[in-house]
Parts: sequence; C-alpha cells; structure tokens
Amino acid sequence: MDKQNQDELKKRAAIKAASLVRSGMKLGIGTGSTVAYLIDELGRRKKEEHLELAAIVTTSSRSKRQMERWGFQVNELAEVDQLDLTIDGADRFATDFSGIKGGGGALTMEKNVAVNSKKIIWIVDESKVVDYLSGFPLPVEVLPISCEQNFRRFQAQGLKPTWRMADEKRFVTHYGNYIIDLNIERILVPQGLAAYLDHMVGVVEHGLFINMCDEVIIAHTNGKIEQRKK
Amino acid sequence: MDKQNQDELKKRAAIKAASLVRSGMKLGIGTGSTVAYLIDELGRRKKEEHLELAAIVTTSSRSKRQMERWGFQVNELAEVDQLDLTIDGADRFATDFSGIKGGGGALTMEKNVAVNSKKIIWIVDESKVVDYLSGFPLPVEVLPISCEQNFRRFQAQGLKPTWRMADEKRFVTHYGNYIIDLNIERILVPQGLAAYLDHMVGVVEHGLFINMCDEVIIAHTNGKIEQRKK
Repeated sequence: MDKQNQDELKKRAAIKAASLVRSGMKLGIGTGSTVAYLIDELGRRKKEEHLELAAIVTTSSRSKRQMERWGFQVNELAEVDQLDLTIDGADRFATDFSGIKGGGGALTMEKNVAVNSKKIIWIVDESKVVDYLSGFPLPVEVLPISCEQNFRRFQAQGLKPTWRMADEKRFVTHYGNYIIDLNIERILVPQGLAAYLDHMVGVVEHGLFINMCDEVIIAHTNGKIEQRKK
Repeated sequence: MDKQNQDELKKRAAIKAASLVRSGMKLGIGTGSTVAYLIDELGRRKKEEHLELAAIVTTSSRSKRQMERWGFQVNELAEVDQLDLTIDGADRFATDFSGIKGGGGALTMEKNVAVNSKKIIWIVDESKVVDYLSGFPLPVEVLPISCEQNFRRFQAQGLKPTWRMADEKRFVTHYGNYIIDLNIERILVPQGLAAYLDHMVGVVEHGLFINMCDEVIIAHTNGKIEQRKK
C-alpha cells in the first residue's frame, strides 16, 4: 500500500474514532500520526458542529499544541478527576486486548492518563494486531540511580535489554529517566511480566497495558475499518 | 533520658555497627544523627587503623560530604555492581524485620541502595521498635501528573493520606515528585499493602522495606546495645 492510501486509511479510522466523542465529555488524547487526524476531525466538529469538551488532557506537547491551534483549552491531568474517554494509538494490540505502548518514550504519561479514564479506545492499523504480544520491544522507564543494576538483572533473566538511544546518547524521558527496551520475541503471560516489573525497585513504569483497552478501531489494508469491543 | 545520654547511646550503637565494617568492602551508608556518628567512627578507623573501602555509596549529600571530609571517595550507585553491606537508620522496625523508612523524604534513593546490597544493618533506638509497623506515617513518592487521583484513591481506601509539606508548599523530592504520607495506625500484612502500592500507576516508590534488613542494632534506654540477627 502506498503512503497516500495508508494516510487515507489512517484518516478514516481517526474519523470513525472521533465519531464516538460527544459534547460534554472529559477527553484524553494520545499521540501519533493517526491521532493527528483525530484532532483535526475534532477541530472540524468544533468549528462546524459546535463540539464542546468539558476537559481535555493530552499525552504529549505535540498533541496539546495541535488541539490549541483548533481553539481547544487543554488541562493538566491532575486538575481533572476522571476522564470519560481516552483515544490513543498502540504499538502492538493482542487479541486479548492487552497491548504494548511507549515506542515514542512517553509510556509513563500515557499510562497515567489511561488508568484515569473510564473508557479507552485504541486506533491501530492491521500490522499492529497480533495473537500474542510480540514483534515490538517492551519499553521500561528506569531511574538513573540503579539503571545499570536493573539492566544486568534483565540480562540475567534473558530479557535481552538494550538502551533506548537518541543522537548517540541515552534517550532521556520527560521525567529525567532512561528507557531500557526488552527485546522479547513473544510475551507469554504478560500479567506475570507486568507484576515482575511493577515490583522492581528503580522501575518507574513499563509499556505493558493490560486490562485497559475497551475498544479498538483497526484499519485493514483491504480498506475495511473494523471496530472491535472487548 | 537527657540529650547527652541519648547522644552517648547513639554513638555507642554507631561504633558497634562500624565494627562490622571491614577493609575492602563496598559500603552503603544511610543518613541521620546515628549514621553521622558511624561516619566519624569510620573516619577515625581510616586515620588510625588504615581502613580502606573498595567503594562507598551514600543515600544523601549530607553523608557524602561528611565522608569526603574524612578523605573517603564516594561513588554513584550505578558505578558499583553490588554493595557488600549497607548501614542505615529506620523510622520503624518491626520484630519480623520489616520497616518503615523515608521520614526524611529520600525513600527512593534509600530503597535503590538497599536492594543492591548483599547485607543490610539498621541502627535504631528502642523507641523505633514495634511489634507491628505502626506509629509512623508511611511515605509514598508519587509523580505529580496523577498525584491528585492517587491521593483520592488512598482516601477512598481509608489510608488517611496527607501531603508532605515544606515551608507551606508541597515537599518536592530529589526526583521532582511529591510525597503522600499514609497515616495508617497499624499496618497489618505489609506485603499486601506493598503489592497494592507497587502496582499503582504514578507511584514511584514507598517506604515499606520488607525482606531487606538482615540485622539490627538496637540502642536501649537502659544503656544496653542489642545486636539482633534475622
């Protein structure tokens, strides 16, 4: 599929997701190329259909700026009690509705937004859908203080850690931490791995999103936009 | 007991703990008034007995500066593989060897040092020793992004949260986070509470130290210095 068709498909999936947003909602908005189309559609609806949102939280400054260009006012998560709906992308979506997120390095903010949302919808293209979480490294955000020890623990467990890099230096997150990518071929029992990582001292957050996604919109290469509920 | 006798007792407990340090060790050093006496005793041994440590990590800049005044070179934890021994204080010590730490707000650094130590010795005075963890608020370090939501979750669970304050503002940790103190009268099954906090998104670390302490040196008001092993 060429870039133009791919973009058209992303746009149609984003419009489908935007159709689930109602005036008065407290809305969480993720980041990515498909979410950019979602924001433009919300902007169009604001202008043409007077869509008004009660609160808006974004997971990146890029999405924040794009919303603000459409005249939306963006809030901090801490100001909002609970979001009604969050729409975001995902790096992998397994058919049990678990997922891997954090390819962009903002997993901690994404997960904090997610756990404070009543409902979560992910938009993905067909290539992200897998039977078991696989084919994408699992990001783990770690405090610098004991990052070397945690890296070696992951090595010892056979989790194939690599440092997330940027410009030949270690990538630094919004919170001043590092990201270790675990290059696991296939994650079986993601709950077990999540528990291991949750308990590990020095781990701030990880990219396993389990029991969070309620609904997924899948853009298939044959042009079909599929809506799947948990 | 007057201040002079109390200081004398702390000093004797610290000297006892220092006697367990051997040349060639990689040593972790905590913070507090008793630890200050420990450092002075290590300094005396360096000067008079040529004590030499292979590596030193401290949990505060205060202890770091005091060690450096004695001519010790202090390392970053990430540079050291594993510490042989860490000596620190504790805010509460239960007879099952669990404890509460973080009254000073450095719980995350203290726990990262602790989990990377082969052996941990705590020095406490008699007033810190309890049958069940109680009598001291449990500090929880939280990311600002969803701190309000986590505060309300703690309220809803009856955990009596209060914000740690400094100069009428929220106390900010070394990592730019806030501390919520849980004013629980008595913590039963600390493992259960620790698991709940470990899994909570937005919690960086908490002050429950379970399965960490191997040995405790207790300064009793009757003048006895008790050494208790797990």
